[in-house]
Amino acid sequence: MADKVTIATVAAHANVSRQTVSNVLNTPHLVREETRERVREAIAVLGYRANQAARLMRTGRSHLLAVRIEPTRDGINGSVLDRFLHGLTEAAAPAGYRILLYAAADDQAEIATYDDLLATYELDGFVLTSTHHGDVRTSWLAERGVPFVTFGRPWGRLGADARTEPAALSGAAGSHPWVDVDNAAGTAAATRHLLDAGHRRIGFIGWPEGSGVGDERRAGWAATAGADLPELARATVDGVAEGEAAAHDLLSISDPPTALVCASDSLAAGAYGVAPPGVAVTGFDDTAVARVLGLTSVAQPLAEAAARCVDLLAGVLDGGAAPHPVLLPPSLVIRQSA
Amino acid sequence: MADKVTIATVAAHANVSRQTVSNVLNTPHLVREETRERVREAIAVLGYRANQAARLMRTGRSHLLAVRIEPTRDGINGSVLDRFLHGLTEAAAPAGYRILLYAAADDQAEIATYDDLLATYELDGFVLTSTHHGDVRTSWLAERGVPFVTFGRPWGRLGADARTEPAALSGAAGSHPWVDVDNAAGTAAATRHLLDAGHRRIGFIGWPEGSGVGDERRAGWAATAGADLPELARATVDGVAEGEAAAHDLLSISDPPTALVCASDSLAAGAYGVAPPGVAVTGFDDTAVARVLGLTSVAQPLAEAAARCVDLLAGVLDGGAAPHPVLLPPSLVIRQSA
Repeated sequence: MADKVTIATVAAHANVSRQTVSNVLNTPHLVREETRERVREAIAVLGYRANQAARLMRTGRSHLLAVRIEPTRDGINGSVLDRFLHGLTEAAAPAGYRILLYAAADDQAEIATYDDLLATYELDGFVLTSTHHGDVRTSWLAERGVPFVTFGRPWGRLGADARTEPAALSGAAGSHPWVDVDNAAGTAAATRHLLDAGHRRIGFIGWPEGSGVGDERRAGWAATAGADLPELARATVDGVAEGEAAAHDLLSISDPPTALVCASDSLAAGAYGVAPPGVAVTGFDDTAVARVLGLTSVAQPLAEAAARCVDLLAGVLDGGAAPHPVLLPPSLVIRQSA
Repeated sequence: MADKVTIATVAAHANVSRQTVSNVLNTPHLVREETRERVREAIAVLGYRANQAARLMRTGRSHLLAVRIEPTRDGINGSVLDRFLHGLTEAAAPAGYRILLYAAADDQAEIATYDDLLATYELDGFVLTSTHHGDVRTSWLAERGVPFVTFGRPWGRLGADARTEPAALSGAAGSHPWVDVDNAAGTAAATRHLLDAGHRRIGFIGWPEGSGVGDERRAGWAATAGADLPELARATVDGVAEGEAAAHDLLSISDPPTALVCASDSLAAGAYGVAPPGVAVTGFDDTAVARVLGLTSVAQPLAEAAARCVDLLAGVLDGGAAPHPVLLPPSLVIRQSA
């Protein structure tokens, strides 16, 4: 039965043109929702099955977007990218795309996978996460003309000034479509909240210099706390035990801080565990751990970031003008820890 | 250049037959690893691009497996399915498959999505998660002959005896390939651990009757604690606050329990927060929250479960005999809470 139902049958049933049915199948985001629903209903009722092979031949578009699924690590900060993935899947479907997953151990393995994916599945484009200084993935894709968008801004080479500046935000030559969350604004909001509560010596626990995101989070604290005193800042690899150790260290200096801004919920969970009563602690990413421990934490608008990534990439695929980058503000979720 | 490289060019370069190149592209898991690597290297060096459209026409196989990404909910128990998804993505690639994601609000929406996915992407099969009593998804797929595997056993209709029995495990008529973790063995191990530590009144906090997984977790406790005394068990919807309330209630009865086995880390996190010193608490799923709080918890072998799902489904797709279901043992991770 499915073989005898054609686009013409569907068009007649839905009382639209064959071109409209074709549009619903191939560029649904260009079709009005009401029409799209009517055509989809006809497709469902009639049991029409578009032939992906024929469709690919005809349109050269697979409507597949690929995204890397990252290792789970400690399950605290990694959960951010899982939430991003949920948002991406939910935003892609109404825009007419589906998400294909791949795993890769590092940037080089990821590039090898691009090659495989492009050869095998004729992907329309990629959504890259975890951009960093000297990222070789974006130049590989750009050189080959493969459409992509990044969640995370282009950080440039290490040492270059990759801070958010009007030039970078305007999508200057050499850049690519990206969506990011304003990390510095997040730690600045946490620091301001602590200042408002009367704290005057506010410490910072972050990551070693050189990670774009980590440096931004430190910059937001430094610019707001009044002075970026090295004695009030500690850098460590991420982790609960590491946060504990750094907090111990900071709280044992003479004239210790009365509040600690942390670059992640992992570090904050560790710091909060050893902070004496009255010492405030804030985290970053508003994870389940923050909710359970009662940690005040900076929340990233992950569903919105994912939806904007789909928007930008769909725009590129439809041949639109180079889209402007999107920088989203985070928000502070206040709980008992600060 | 890519247009002029053909399967014959790749075959000559790798010193294999054209059929072998075709096998590497279409059924890589049937090719010896060393040969597969050599062919893939030739493909990379020559810049050969298989044409997915042509391949689909030729083989009728897309090498895409679809899986639903579930809502994040409280980010505690939901993280289990995210970890399963990581495992699935990692296991699929070496077997020659990729994972396509979809979201769906409920079973009916999920079935509508099957239709769309089958029509548009010519999927090879589905991996279903969160099976439950009266699951309409599996019968929909089975009736249409769509290959699938479930993570979670078939629970049958509510009220039917769907416990793990030799008949169910042998893959009897009407069943389908499935992989599950032995939930009852998990709570039994937690309860035994508490008995060994000298506890004699062990309570249970779980979910309302009717969820296959929840009923199994209660059964494991009841069979091991000695007596399934209703006065020692509480049922509530999942959540930290709900765990707190249930623990309060259980600990205020006359002759209260000295230990609490919980059906989830969310419930355990709540219970542990209000339990007085000396009252032991165990959770389920070994989430990041359990690690941060120091909760003893039952861990599911999620990466292995995902890999076995890929194995079973690949076997079905290759036309093998109906595979035997797989029931995996969980393990108890002991921390300070019990």
